[in-house]
Amino acid sequence: MKRRFRIDIEYDGTNYCGWQRQTNGCSIQFAIEEALKPLNKNQQVTVIGSGRTDSGVHALNQVAHFDLETSLSTESIKDALNARTPEDILIHECKEVDSSFHARFSAVKRTYIYQVLEKPSAINRYYSWLPPFEFDFFILTKCAKLVEGKHDFTSLCRSATESKSKVCIVYESEWIKKEEMLIYKIAGNRFLHSMVRMLVGTMMEVARGKYTISDFKNLLENEPGEMQVYTAPAKGLFLLKVEY
Amino acid sequence: MKRRFRIDIEYDGTNYCGWQRQTNGCSIQFAIEEALKPLNKNQQVTVIGSGRTDSGVHALNQVAHFDLETSLSTESIKDALNARTPEDILIHECKEVDSSFHARFSAVKRTYIYQVLEKPSAINRYYSWLPPFEFDFFILTKCAKLVEGKHDFTSLCRSATESKSKVCIVYESEWIKKEEMLIYKIAGNRFLHSMVRMLVGTMMEVARGKYTISDFKNLLENEPGEMQVYTAPAKGLFLLKVEY
Repeated sequence: MKRRFRIDIEYDGTNYCGWQRQTNGCSIQFAIEEALKPLNKNQQVTVIGSGRTDSGVHALNQVAHFDLETSLSTESIKDALNARTPEDILIHECKEVDSSFHARFSAVKRTYIYQVLEKPSAINRYYSWLPPFEFDFFILTKCAKLVEGKHDFTSLCRSATESKSKVCIVYESEWIKKEEMLIYKIAGNRFLHSMVRMLVGTMMEVARGKYTISDFKNLLENEPGEMQVYTAPAKGLFLLKVEY
Repeated sequence: MKRRFRIDIEYDGTNYCGWQRQTNGCSIQFAIEEALKPLNKNQQVTVIGSGRTDSGVHALNQVAHFDLETSLSTESIKDALNARTPEDILIHECKEVDSSFHARFSAVKRTYIYQVLEKPSAINRYYSWLPPFEFDFFILTKCAKLVEGKHDFTSLCRSATESKSKVCIVYESEWIKKEEMLIYKIAGNRFLHSMVRMLVGTMMEVARGKYTISDFKNLLENEPGEMQVYTAPAKGLFLLKVEY
């Protein structure tokens, strides 16, 4: 009989084409699925994540589930996965869960952070964005507050986004200063394709003076007018946690 | 006429064989010296650092100096260096200094930090050490306090260390907890080869129960007895700053 397992995964997305399995095999999902094969008589195991992350995006705690017929303990499965995945993918936990648990559909809250630098950094070059212009931090904080609540994010997601409804509820949206980093934190019930990166990129356009806070407010009401949405680079984004 | 310049450098040491020029050309000093050549009619320029860092050790602010006959502004030199070095080396500042300034001999205080993890991390894998055993943080803090002051560090440096006197004055030595990281910070007038890594590794040996705090105290009085010094991995170490 198959058992269902939940895994909690940290990854450095720098060298991957994102979470989602691609034909060229450079995804995180692929790396984990390959690592699971030997535990499944070398047959494919499908791993379902809480959501996709784009190429170059990182995760401090991505959640995924899979079904496996095995007598192995959760600790042994975790160890086998860590032994068989590269060191930029790390399984923090493996737990057996009820078959009703679904990494994507059971999730009720997802939290992301986006790291911005104010001056160049060699150490953080793969984990943050250095905007190539001056900007006003206070304007960023004001924009962030406007994002909280229920909005139609049609203007703030890739047109390829599959889901019909573009309405998301944002529980928390704020910018904080932490040492040499500016960190945008956003928590919501769901996120559309590239939504966080587009929010960050576009808040920056306001903070550098290209648009007004009122333009940004209209965009959140799905009235973009002449406003151009800018997508911030993937490398600054981290999936922080997923709640069930 | 030659002018003397001071540069302040950040680097990610992961892909280098350390600061010091080697015959195989993988050092940080080499990368900067090569980048300077075009500013010196393609002739070699010697760059003198405040001190060496080992292979894999990082720097948030290393200081170096060099002499150059040029009419370029310091800003142009900085930009030229940043354009010609890989992105894991970053020149934060370039200043013209008096010819009496010497990056190594004029330095009066150097500060290092060493990052230790309590659980595995994919994101921080090149910037911290995860000891493969349990240890007592309180013992670490007690050991650190003993390091402050003037000691003969003969037992806590590589035998290849060139300098005759092994006496160093430690102004500050402490362990702090910062989110998921344990950070050892040490400031002193000078440091011997591998000294910080040996201090960290050996404090850990005490904190895991292999030796007593009193053994460690004897080691600091250059009476090592049967004690084995352990060198912590390079990747957790950062040269934080150099003061003049």
